Amino acid sequence: MGRATVRRPVVRIRGLHRSSRPDTVVAEEPLELRVGGKALAVTMRTPGHDVELAHGFLATEGVIGGRDDILAARYCDGVDDEGLNTYNVLDLALAEHVPPPDPGVERNFYTTSSCGVCGKASLDAVRLKTRHSPAADGATVTTTVLTTLPDTLREHQRIFASTGGLHAAALFDTDGTLLAVREDVGRHNAVDKVIGWAVLEGRVPLTGTVLMVSGRASFELAQKAVMAGIPILAAVSAPSSLAVDLADESGLTVVGFLRGDGMNVYTHAHRVISEPPPDDAR
Amino acid sequence: MGRATVRRPVVRIRGLHRSSRPDTVVAEEPLELRVGGKALAVTMRTPGHDVELAHGFLATEGVIGGRDDILAARYCDGVDDEGLNTYNVLDLALAEHVPPPDPGVERNFYTTSSCGVCGKASLDAVRLKTRHSPAADGATVTTTVLTTLPDTLREHQRIFASTGGLHAAALFDTDGTLLAVREDVGRHNAVDKVIGWAVLEGRVPLTGTVLMVSGRASFELAQKAVMAGIPILAAVSAPSSLAVDLADESGLTVVGFLRGDGMNVYTHAHRVISEPPPDDAR
Repeated sequence: MGRATVRRPVVRIRGLHRSSRPDTVVAEEPLELRVGGKALAVTMRTPGHDVELAHGFLATEGVIGGRDDILAARYCDGVDDEGLNTYNVLDLALAEHVPPPDPGVERNFYTTSSCGVCGKASLDAVRLKTRHSPAADGATVTTTVLTTLPDTLREHQRIFASTGGLHAAALFDTDGTLLAVREDVGRHNAVDKVIGWAVLEGRVPLTGTVLMVSGRASFELAQKAVMAGIPILAAVSAPSSLAVDLADESGLTVVGFLRGDGMNVYTHAHRVISEPPPDDAR
Repeated sequence: MGRATVRRPVVRIRGLHRSSRPDTVVAEEPLELRVGGKALAVTMRTPGHDVELAHGFLATEGVIGGRDDILAARYCDGVDDEGLNTYNVLDLALAEHVPPPDPGVERNFYTTSSCGVCGKASLDAVRLKTRHSPAADGATVTTTVLTTLPDTLREHQRIFASTGGLHAAALFDTDGTLLAVREDVGRHNAVDKVIGWAVLEGRVPLTGTVLMVSGRASFELAQKAVMAGIPILAAVSAPSSLAVDLADESGLTVVGFLRGDGMNVYTHAHRVISEPPPDDAR
């Protein structure tokens, strides 16, 4: 099984001081996803939680609706120069009732970092249909809870702490309880991994949850949240215009620049309830 | 022509204070690249410098070697609901001597943020052939010059300053002279745009240059540097294992964590010359 970090030699320079030593860097390796033996997508990812990644990717692309739609996932014949299994090829068997991705989809599915939307040949295909709209989700979250999420996320970024080199995504209940956190060199993969975790737990649609991401909120991340039925997407950094537009249309609440006691709410702000922080409430 | 930023309403929350106002967010829109009228790739990008993006993308994918390989680039029939041109479809005419991307390549070219490598169906295709290896490039750069690059890059991030929402890439001479800087919601697009600028200027291979990126150094960014013949890749943040491995093999110098007077050199450190900072030299 691939490891999430590897050691590489590095020349460390601080002013005029130069030293050589091994350093820990985040692992990045290609993962080829196959469905019924046929190549569907290749993504550059940090090894680990590959089965979750596959479930999250297929769910957020609309290929599967839940865990019962996949019968089996197993590593297959990716062999390196020395004949060892690379664990970089994962083959998925769909349940009989699940239509395999049609050739058009398959052809347009090639992605980086599990970003499905950009893999569409036609601009018309950009806005994917979702099975779980967050529009009707009555969930609310307080500002007090929201402001705790970035620190909780950071505390659980094990790989980041040792390498400084990757993105994280986490699912929280609206009371701030951490459900799952995953890290990856690709921001989309980190999101696919937490959503895939939820698929495997039978928790999709993810009503009443907050998806927290360590970086920006792009269109693709908003799309993944919508596809999984997540009502609230919170990001440490800025959202893009298309993420805001999709969220507006889809009933997704987008919170950006979540730092300290502040945040910007770009869409469906009714879900964010202002509340004095605990110190003031005493 | 698309704009790089757009205005969206936002609810700004600071502690218990809540205010509504318009906010500037970075624009993100799909760009469909066509070659001879046939769809080749769709990428989510910040509008602007699209012709550079196309040149950089095709050069770093090995389809073209220089500007003479493309006869014309023009926006075509991307029309929105109101019949207005979206300027989101760019059609490229290759010169007669340039073989069009073969169906296999075309099929595997679907990408996000112009990341070509992940769009390959086969893991065997990951390491692309380059026309311009940086291995023989005798360029060197001093630590003094390197430590100035992050500030210069930041000073030129016009869109970031107003939105906080995107990546930047810049090309420098080894004496620290800025050649070109571009911003984009996609890190790969920012790199494709500066490399595309160089293609259009007839400056590829980019011998004797440093490519500086605002974030991490992933495999794909290392690949793009190698494909363009750039000898030195510098990043504010961490590199991934595969970026380091590719750089090691290809003769590319990778500098990471370039902050303050410090940096980590992961590969081919002979190109980085330690020099007292200007203050000490007086």
